[in-house]
Amino acid sequence: MIKKITLIGSGNVAHNLGKAFVLNGFEVVEVYSRTKANAIALADKLDAKYTNNLSEINEESGLYVIATTDNSIEEIAKQLKLKSHFIVHTSGSVSIDVFENKFSHFGSFYPLQTFTKSHQADFKEIPICLEGNNEKNLELLKGLASKLSTKTVELTSAQRQKLHLSAVFVSNFANYMQVIGEELCEEQQVDFDLLRPLIKEVFEKNQKGKAIDNQTGPALRGDSFTMNKHLGLLKDKKELHQLYKLLSDMIQNK
Amino acid sequence: MIKKITLIGSGNVAHNLGKAFVLNGFEVVEVYSRTKANAIALADKLDAKYTNNLSEINEESGLYVIATTDNSIEEIAKQLKLKSHFIVHTSGSVSIDVFENKFSHFGSFYPLQTFTKSHQADFKEIPICLEGNNEKNLELLKGLASKLSTKTVELTSAQRQKLHLSAVFVSNFANYMQVIGEELCEEQQVDFDLLRPLIKEVFEKNQKGKAIDNQTGPALRGDSFTMNKHLGLLKDKKELHQLYKLLSDMIQNK
Repeated sequence: MIKKITLIGSGNVAHNLGKAFVLNGFEVVEVYSRTKANAIALADKLDAKYTNNLSEINEESGLYVIATTDNSIEEIAKQLKLKSHFIVHTSGSVSIDVFENKFSHFGSFYPLQTFTKSHQADFKEIPICLEGNNEKNLELLKGLASKLSTKTVELTSAQRQKLHLSAVFVSNFANYMQVIGEELCEEQQVDFDLLRPLIKEVFEKNQKGKAIDNQTGPALRGDSFTMNKHLGLLKDKKELHQLYKLLSDMIQNK
Repeated sequence: MIKKITLIGSGNVAHNLGKAFVLNGFEVVEVYSRTKANAIALADKLDAKYTNNLSEINEESGLYVIATTDNSIEEIAKQLKLKSHFIVHTSGSVSIDVFENKFSHFGSFYPLQTFTKSHQADFKEIPICLEGNNEKNLELLKGLASKLSTKTVELTSAQRQKLHLSAVFVSNFANYMQVIGEELCEEQQVDFDLLRPLIKEVFEKNQKGKAIDNQTGPALRGDSFTMNKHLGLLKDKKELHQLYKLLSDMIQNK
């Protein structure tokens, strides 16, 4: 069973995950960040040691968790001198192949949620997606994850990558649709709050059912009269015009 | 004060609005639909007369409400012989100019929500956007709308059109982001429910604040490593690839 954990990284995921480990009885023994001040800030919060030197990382932990930006994981893995230890990353988009031939024990520990340092997330409802390089390591990760969350799931790297891509659409891009709506309303001094009941209705319908069954609007109806009016309103906004047309085409082609 | 209402149209809006009028003490005296069976179905529900002949519509109502498809409003307005009567449409995208020189009293009565015949909406929380060709007519519409909803607002046609366009982005297109997410998950047999806590978090953040302050993701971070991974996953899906790239560019250019 895993008891001692070393955290590599000091961003939003590291802050939230580190705190969740401690709150659930695990010991975070050390925090690494290449920026000393960031390492200290998180280490203080977790009552842990800190370092900003990868080659000085302790060798006493049962698990080393890389919670850094996706593009730094491979380089960090190269530099770590922990071949016989157990290492995971928290990335949605990086395959665990990144650890192959460098470590004997490795996997993925991906909590699917948006995190901010300022707000400690409640992990109980957050899905944690797990992968291990063998059955024993997967079981060890399950044991750890199930202490944090009621929703743990085993996913291959390919599945996790598709899930992460889906998350970009359903959260980042869906959020951006609202950014666009806010801007269009501002242009005409229309109170955006007028749209909130509609947004709530769509959200609630989709929590119960599938979005494909709840699609509405001019594109779905093939209402070219209204679509042309809308495109006319966007004629001076090249990218928005293109976006409206592309999405309407995609909905109609379905 | 308006008491008697004639409904022109028998679609989702006509069904919900007609029922709301009746529930709030107004009398729907007649329902018109070009399809007789549809006129009868709604008239029965509202205890009203029906007709499928525009030239036979009664002249006794205080308000004539056109709740048909946007592209039919102009033609219906032309054919109606009710010049001295009070007429409104329920469209988000059509200007009230469509009634100019044809009627002495006219305006817009736009309830901002998605409606289905099978489910009677509770109008109390639904914003009703109003416009009148003069102050007196606007006041008459306010009197009517405030019996149905606690949220009535005066908007010009230009404002209403922008609001309607915003609604397409925040509801139809945001919904479509979830359709895409569902499909991507299905391809890899990933349970879409894993994404629901994330979707809920985004929704709740945006109910309290502005979406522009809650934007996250690879595009906002300028994380080209992850964006390229995602574009790689979409390389065989031309439109989705284009959509991902366009949205990421828009978010980055902001």
